[in-house]
Amino acid sequence: MLNYLDKIKNTDSGNFFLMAGPCAIEGEDIAMRIAEKIITITHKLKIPYIFKGSYRKANRSKGSSFTGIGDEKALRILERIGREFGVPTVTDIHESGEAAMAAAYVDVLQIPAFLCRQTDLLIAAAETGKVVNVKKGQFLSAGSMKFAVEKVKEAGNDKVILTDRGNTFGYQDLIVDYRGLPEMQSFGVPVVMDCTHSLQQPNQSSGVTGGKPELILTIAKAAIAVGADGLFIETHPDPANAKSDGANMLHLDLLEETLTKLIRIRQAIL
Amino acid sequence: MLNYLDKIKNTDSGNFFLMAGPCAIEGEDIAMRIAEKIITITHKLKIPYIFKGSYRKANRSKGSSFTGIGDEKALRILERIGREFGVPTVTDIHESGEAAMAAAYVDVLQIPAFLCRQTDLLIAAAETGKVVNVKKGQFLSAGSMKFAVEKVKEAGNDKVILTDRGNTFGYQDLIVDYRGLPEMQSFGVPVVMDCTHSLQQPNQSSGVTGGKPELILTIAKAAIAVGADGLFIETHPDPANAKSDGANMLHLDLLEETLTKLIRIRQAIL
Amino acid sequence: MLNYLDKIKNTDSGNFFLMAGPCAIEGEDIAMRIAEKIITITHKLKIPYIFKGSYRKANRSKGSSFTGIGDEKALRILERIGREFGVPTVTDIHESGEAAMAAAYVDVLQIPAFLCRQTDLLIAAAETGKVVNVKKGQFLSAGSMKFAVEKVKEAGNDKVILTDRGNTFGYQDLIVDYRGLPEMQSFGVPVVMDCTHSLQQPNQSSGVTGGKPELILTIAKAAIAVGADGLFIETHPDPANAKSDGANMLHLDLLEETLTKLIRIRQAIL
Amino acid sequence: MLNYLDKIKNTDSGNFFLMAGPCAIEGEDIAMRIAEKIITITHKLKIPYIFKGSYRKANRSKGSSFTGIGDEKALRILERIGREFGVPTVTDIHESGEAAMAAAYVDVLQIPAFLCRQTDLLIAAAETGKVVNVKKGQFLSAGSMKFAVEKVKEAGNDKVILTDRGNTFGYQDLIVDYRGLPEMQSFGVPVVMDCTHSLQQPNQSSGVTGGKPELILTIAKAAIAVGADGLFIETHPDPANAKSDGANMLHLDLLEETLTKLIRIRQAIL
Repeated sequence: MLNYLDKIKNTDSGNFFLMAGPCAIEGEDIAMRIAEKIITITHKLKIPYIFKGSYRKANRSKGSSFTGIGDEKALRILERIGREFGVPTVTDIHESGEAAMAAAYVDVLQIPAFLCRQTDLLIAAAETGKVVNVKKGQFLSAGSMKFAVEKVKEAGNDKVILTDRGNTFGYQDLIVDYRGLPEMQSFGVPVVMDCTHSLQQPNQSSGVTGGKPELILTIAKAAIAVGADGLFIETHPDPANAKSDGANMLHLDLLEETLTKLIRIRQAIL
Repeated sequence: MLNYLDKIKNTDSGNFFLMAGPCAIEGEDIAMRIAEKIITITHKLKIPYIFKGSYRKANRSKGSSFTGIGDEKALRILERIGREFGVPTVTDIHESGEAAMAAAYVDVLQIPAFLCRQTDLLIAAAETGKVVNVKKGQFLSAGSMKFAVEKVKEAGNDKVILTDRGNTFGYQDLIVDYRGLPEMQSFGVPVVMDCTHSLQQPNQSSGVTGGKPELILTIAKAAIAVGADGLFIETHPDPANAKSDGANMLHLDLLEETLTKLIRIRQAIL
Repeated sequence: MLNYLDKIKNTDSGNFFLMAGPCAIEGEDIAMRIAEKIITITHKLKIPYIFKGSYRKANRSKGSSFTGIGDEKALRILERIGREFGVPTVTDIHESGEAAMAAAYVDVLQIPAFLCRQTDLLIAAAETGKVVNVKKGQFLSAGSMKFAVEKVKEAGNDKVILTDRGNTFGYQDLIVDYRGLPEMQSFGVPVVMDCTHSLQQPNQSSGVTGGKPELILTIAKAAIAVGADGLFIETHPDPANAKSDGANMLHLDLLEETLTKLIRIRQAIL
Repeated sequence: MLNYLDKIKNTDSGNFFLMAGPCAIEGEDIAMRIAEKIITITHKLKIPYIFKGSYRKANRSKGSSFTGIGDEKALRILERIGREFGVPTVTDIHESGEAAMAAAYVDVLQIPAFLCRQTDLLIAAAETGKVVNVKKGQFLSAGSMKFAVEKVKEAGNDKVILTDRGNTFGYQDLIVDYRGLPEMQSFGVPVVMDCTHSLQQPNQSSGVTGGKPELILTIAKAAIAVGADGLFIETHPDPANAKSDGANMLHLDLLEETLTKLIRIRQAIL
């Protein structure tokens, strides 16, 4: 699994893999520092690791929210992390024109959940030849993600990952439906649980999405127990002051302990 | 209301306005025929009318679904309808690069529900100076649409319309929340009920969205009763053989009778 | 419709009927005062009217909430209202043993939404020979209410009314699905919209259900427009100080104006 | 935990406990056979065990569904199982009058999910002095179950268990919200995952609730991983021919293997 990613390590450990990093690339120093810390931890725990960072936030609730430090600047940081640390990297794209641009810098292109039905975007991502990680729309069933997988594969790219980030449950809550994980795995692709965004509390009157970060471990434990192939966790050394999604990022200091507990569950199901 | 649309007629009748037409522009003859029929009806009933037709379907469940007859070809048909019949026209766009292109042919740019949070797209649409009709995401509250309105207005365009097309209710159903209509009207914009897509039954295992067209009148009556400013109805002379969304389009032969009933309710609330 | 209720008036007016009164019977004076006021209004507006009052509140969130002034005392007040004003009355029962007791005092037995699947309760209510008004569970589809109707009818009682009070939508909200009204009418029974409880905001951390009373008219307008046979409205001269459900009761002073608007919509659909 | 149950065994094993048995008591022979088999398995695996069987089914969708073999007959079978096998037993009650009756035969009284807000029923169950297992309503949040616990405790009974059986998700589906388990545990009571009913597919047009029994292990694994204290599993030697809830019962032949896998996860989180 994921062997199509040149730089991925520890794939023979039997562990789940990890996509982790800050929500957004806020600057070079902090991104490098986060990457280094996570790489140290995942090396020690033998977890296959992909560095995650958004180069642009394109779908904030409010127009005034932080959207990035500049596309090329952020993408170059992602590239440098991949090169210097020898890890694969992932970032999300929002329109088909971004696919080729982002593909020049990263190893995995991620399709945001709101956009998982946009055929042009899926095809543009597929055609770069990079791995394509499609997030399941909050409004889509696990079963419907079969068609997203097919759109990528029909464009000639078999390297698809699906990520669950919860389902719309009333206006201000999301619920993870763990029945969807084995269902999506039945499409022959790795399935990831996004432990960060599935805890969002959307549609807050403030226009800033809320969260419940104390439940990250709960979401992750259940995912590993039911056989998730990977986890997606946004993490930051100072979530309260992060420029986006601070409400749900895991404090970087808690990452090792969190992963250690999850590995025990992983081993119990093998 | 809608007086910013040059070609709009009957705005002093006190009636709700109507966005109607086929789901997709399938060809020139059929589009012209549908337009002519609807114009005859709305002229007789004194309903302000905007012709609706998608020039491209970009978010079908399945990659193999009908996506259009060619962008320019379809846009030219929309332009011809606007010019020959003297009615404003609306079409939907999916990426920011399409905004200027589509704006050269139509009067209203529509933002699909899945894309209502895409800031770049909203701004690109706003910057054309055309009217922007934003569909409420199935996963968004009415209250959150305030931020979509603000994004358009902050880009210098006050001509915003909001359209409700229902809310995610389990995986395979949508529910219209009529409480949202007055809430969205409180943002100072006209609010439209999409009587077609709010009846969709998404996430069908076939990959083709289902529907309940016999309930179009029910959805519309409730909307008019609570004060909706406009209705969005996809209509076709032969829904069963339409190239997309046949499951929910109103048969064109039923349109006049449907609108006549709704006008009576409209008059009862004035 | 409802002609099986001896005391019902104005059934030939073509109007929707009204079940209204305070949430709970708080005392004789106030109950009589509310009844008199509503009877004056409905007489003037030619609306068939049933006085509503709970003699006991059996499913409050918290054990410490108000549950009643004593069963027999409250039931005697209901009986007196029926007798002195010549109106039919309705109250809700919670266990099968209450059916015969309540039936000695009122004309309509109401089955609370949480209890609409309790076969024993439905049968006990049916066997009294009184009219049975079954509220649709927040967790039930309109279609499933067919089985509730059948349970009552199979017990030998054809006098069934169904009342919609909204559907569970996330933990803290309810949504009315207006598609359900014609569906329930297709079972051959009158269908009522409960404009009070469908606005509840359940599962508040305080243990006291919240509400949105400013939307009562919105809920009712949509219901009348789609053809509801009746409305259920809890009303009180001082909702803020009512002993239960104050959050959603309509101020009694607003009742006439509200009904007058709704009658206009009713006339528009006949 | 559960030490207030005289007959409970294996409580010092560190294992989750199990409530299991057939949906309904269909007859003495089959009930005894199921009990014996489960007791053999749980003895071997050192799982604290409570035998479960309904003596009456009071809330079937349709009036024509199987409701039981006779109350007293079924209760006597439960009593015999408790006495002969030395295991505690649980059955569900539906009206307050049943509490004392059932308490004469079993050790745990279960309050069905639809009825978890019925104060009289909770108090009647509490006053028997038996353990009270309250199922979380499909329409209730985990947080709201605090008030159910308080109702029982205020009636002088501290022996409360809470059981999750999923949340209403659209009309025909339920979703388990695993965030609720730690939340309910914070009320100081054991929390059980009902792996059977949380897989129901309610509101089927046939009037017979559907299910997805192949997902029982998925539901259970996630529950154990997040720390559930107990599991509730309906099991039968021939689910396809069971008299009720056949759609979701685990085949008795699969129970040992299922529990063995879950114990490994349990050990991984201790």
